Amino acid sequence: MTWINENYLKLQAGYLFPEIGRRRKAFQAAAPDAKIISMGIGDVTQPLAPAVTAAMKKAVEEMARAETFRGYDDGGIGYEFLRQAIRDNDYKARGVEIDLDEIIVSDGAKCDTGNMQEIFGLDNVVAVSDPVYPVYVDTNVMAGRTGGWVEIISTIDKLKSVIENRQSKIGLGRYEGIVYMPCTEENNFVPEPPAEKVDLIYLCFPNNPTGGVAKKQQLAEWVDYARRNKAIILFDAAYEAFISEPDIPHSIYEVDGAKDVAIEFRSFSKTAGFTGVRCAFTVIPKQLKAYTKDGRAVEVAPVWKRRHCTKFNGVSYVTQAGAAAIYTKEGKKQVKKTIDIYMSNAKLIRETLGKIGYAVYGGVNAPYIWLKTPKGVGSWEFFDTLLNKAHVVTTPGAGFGSAGEGYVRLTAFGQPKNVEEALKRIKAIS
Amino acid sequence: MTWINENYLKLQAGYLFPEIGRRRKAFQAAAPDAKIISMGIGDVTQPLAPAVTAAMKKAVEEMARAETFRGYDDGGIGYEFLRQAIRDNDYKARGVEIDLDEIIVSDGAKCDTGNMQEIFGLDNVVAVSDPVYPVYVDTNVMAGRTGGWVEIISTIDKLKSVIENRQSKIGLGRYEGIVYMPCTEENNFVPEPPAEKVDLIYLCFPNNPTGGVAKKQQLAEWVDYARRNKAIILFDAAYEAFISEPDIPHSIYEVDGAKDVAIEFRSFSKTAGFTGVRCAFTVIPKQLKAYTKDGRAVEVAPVWKRRHCTKFNGVSYVTQAGAAAIYTKEGKKQVKKTIDIYMSNAKLIRETLGKIGYAVYGGVNAPYIWLKTPKGVGSWEFFDTLLNKAHVVTTPGAGFGSAGEGYVRLTAFGQPKNVEEALKRIKAIS
Repeated sequence: MTWINENYLKLQAGYLFPEIGRRRKAFQAAAPDAKIISMGIGDVTQPLAPAVTAAMKKAVEEMARAETFRGYDDGGIGYEFLRQAIRDNDYKARGVEIDLDEIIVSDGAKCDTGNMQEIFGLDNVVAVSDPVYPVYVDTNVMAGRTGGWVEIISTIDKLKSVIENRQSKIGLGRYEGIVYMPCTEENNFVPEPPAEKVDLIYLCFPNNPTGGVAKKQQLAEWVDYARRNKAIILFDAAYEAFISEPDIPHSIYEVDGAKDVAIEFRSFSKTAGFTGVRCAFTVIPKQLKAYTKDGRAVEVAPVWKRRHCTKFNGVSYVTQAGAAAIYTKEGKKQVKKTIDIYMSNAKLIRETLGKIGYAVYGGVNAPYIWLKTPKGVGSWEFFDTLLNKAHVVTTPGAGFGSAGEGYVRLTAFGQPKNVEEALKRIKAIS
Repeated sequence: MTWINENYLKLQAGYLFPEIGRRRKAFQAAAPDAKIISMGIGDVTQPLAPAVTAAMKKAVEEMARAETFRGYDDGGIGYEFLRQAIRDNDYKARGVEIDLDEIIVSDGAKCDTGNMQEIFGLDNVVAVSDPVYPVYVDTNVMAGRTGGWVEIISTIDKLKSVIENRQSKIGLGRYEGIVYMPCTEENNFVPEPPAEKVDLIYLCFPNNPTGGVAKKQQLAEWVDYARRNKAIILFDAAYEAFISEPDIPHSIYEVDGAKDVAIEFRSFSKTAGFTGVRCAFTVIPKQLKAYTKDGRAVEVAPVWKRRHCTKFNGVSYVTQAGAAAIYTKEGKKQVKKTIDIYMSNAKLIRETLGKIGYAVYGGVNAPYIWLKTPKGVGSWEFFDTLLNKAHVVTTPGAGFGSAGEGYVRLTAFGQPKNVEEALKRIKAIS
C-alpha cells in the first residue's frame, strides 16, 4: 500500500495566490464588465530589456545549428559566462569576494529557498519572520519539520479588535515547532534575534511582503547570533535591485563574518522581468558548515550541489544567455530604467495612500507597499472591499502570517497608468 | 547548531557522470592530442528543429513587447496550449483519454522522477530495477527511505570472475531497504513483479540504461500487481519516441486499469533535443490514490500540484512555446528526422559491435546499447580501456547498479561521423 506524505495534509488551504485567484475569478464572473487591476501577486508587467531579448534570440539561433548547439549545462550549476558576470557585478563591484564555484545558478529563488531546507536535518529549529513569504514555511511543513496548524485567534490580544470583526479565518494561525518572529510597526518590520536558540533562520531583505529593509548593523547582529549559535541564515535578497538608499546592504556578505554562516539567494525575476523566463542563483560560501549529530562539521556547498545535480538538470541555455545580458552596459541601463518605472509607481502608491490617510510602509527600497487596514478591519475583508468596490486586487496580510493580519500588500509592478487608475478608485471609496 | 541531513552522507562517491567526467579530464590532460569521442552521457548533438527555434524566437519577441509580455505561468503547471498539444498527440491519438489538468509541465524528467518520491511517506518500500537510472535511488536515499550502503561484492556468485579482476570498487553495492530487481539476459532486462509486497515501483521503458522494452502483457502484469497491492508505479517513458516496433506500448495507460495505479513521466530532452532547453511533463490521473496510516484514500494529483506550485514556478514561456511547436505538422516531421539519425547510429553500433563478437542488447526501441564486457573484465576497467585505447567514453554498467557490472552503456546520440570513427577505433583494439 502506498502511503502519502502526511505532512502535506497539515498544510492550510491553498497556497495564498490560488485563493486570491479564486476570489478574483468569482468576482469577475459576478461583474463581467469590471476592469480589475492587479496589485496583488508580485508579477512584473514591463517587457524584457532589448539587450536580453537580443541575447536570447542569438542563443536560439545557436541552438538551431549543430556547430553551436548546446545540450546539458555541464555540471548543472550554470555556465561560467553567467557566473562570472554575477561574481564581478553583484559581488566584486561591492567589495565582496565570492568564488565562481560558490555561485549555483537555478531556475528561481522560489525553488532555491524552497528546496534548501532539504539538505538540513529534520530536527533543526526553524525561525521565520511573521509575516513571511509562505514558501519558507510550507516547505518546512512538507518536510515534517513542524507540528500541526494551530489557530491562534484567541491568543493575540493586539489583534482582538480586528479578529472580532473578521468573517474569514483563513491563515490566522501558526505551525507548531516554528519560531515566528513578529515584524511590526514597533520594530520597523525588522526582527531582532530571538532569546532562544534556533538553527535555520530565514531572513528576507528588502522584505516581501512588508517592504522593510535591514541596516548593516541589524544584519551584523544576526550574523553574530548565527556565529554564536552555529546557526545558518538563509538570506533571501531577491529584491536587492530595488534598494535606493545608500546605507542599506545589498548582500549579507557585506557584513564581516557572514560567509561563515549565511547562504544568499538572488533572482532575476523582479530585477529583470524574468518571472516568465526563470533564472536565479544561490551563493554558498565554501567555509559554511553544518553538523552531524556526533559533532562533525560538514561543508554545506557540496551537499547542496549534490542535491542540485541529482534533482535538477540546469537552466535553459537561452535563459542563461539572456541573464548574462543583464550585466552588459546596455543591459544594465535598460534594466535600471524598468526598475525606475516600478519605483516611481511605488512612490506614487505610498504618497497617494498616505495622503488619503492610510498608514503605509515600504516602497522606498522595495517594490512592495504594506498598507495598514482601517481600524478593526481584517485583511481578507479589506481585500474583498478593494476587490468588490475598487476592483483592485491586493494581497491580504493575513495570508503571510498572523502578524500580517490588519495589513494588505500592494505591489508596484503594474503599468503606471493602471496604478494611477487603481489609486483613483481607492481614493474614491475611502 | 544547524544539523546536516545525514541521509546525504550515505550517498556513494559522486553522481555517476561527474566521475566519468573526472576520468575523461584526467585522460585528456595526460594525452592532450587525443580526440575523445563521447558515447557516454546521454546528451544529444543534433540541433533543435527549425519549427521549434522559429517558435522560440517568436516567443522571445513577444517577451520584448509590453502588450504580449508574459510573466509567471499562471498556476505553474504549464500553458494550456502546450498541455492540449500533449493530450491530443501523445495520448488521444493512441486511444488514451487524459484530461488537461492531469498533465503537469515541468523543466525535466530528472526533476519529476527525482521529486515525486517526496509526496509519499517515508515508510513506503521502494522497488527499482538493477541496473537503474541513479536518480530514482539517490533521491530516496536523500529522503531517508533507505538504510546505508552495503558492499555486495562477496555475495554475488555470478559476478565472481568479474570481481576478482576488478581494480575499482565504485558502485558495487546496494542501499539497505530498497528492493532491487535484477535485469539480466535471462529475463531480457524486464523484471517480473517481486514475490514480496512493495509500495513504490520505478519502471523505465524503453529502458535507460539497458535499452530493453516491456511488452504490453508485461506491463499488464505490473499493473495487476500494483492494483492487488495498492502500490503505485512511477513509469518513466522519457524514451518512448524511440520505439520502432509496433507492439510496444508508448504509454503505460495503454494498459487497462493503469490509470488507477500509475504516474507517467515524459520528456522533450531526447525526443526533441531539449537537454539544454528543459521541458518535460508528468501525468497523474485523477483516480490515483495513496493512503494515510489510518486508511484514508488521498488523491495524489492535488498533493503533487501543491508541491509543484510551492517549490517550482513554471517553465520558461519561451521553452513552452518551443515545446508546443514539436507537435505541429512541420515539427513532427523534423523531430522524426532527428530521431531517425540517432536510431541509424544505434543500428550501426549494434551491428558493428555484434560483428566484432560482443554481446549487445537494446538499440532497437531505445537510443541505448548495452554491451557485455569481455569475460572477466569489470565495467569500470572496460570503460578505462575504451577511454585509454580507443579514446571513446562510455558509461560503466556498474555505475547503474551492481547487476550492471559486466556491461557498459553506449548512447546513439553522437554525430554519425563520430559514431563511425568510434566504432572503427573499438574494432581496432578488439
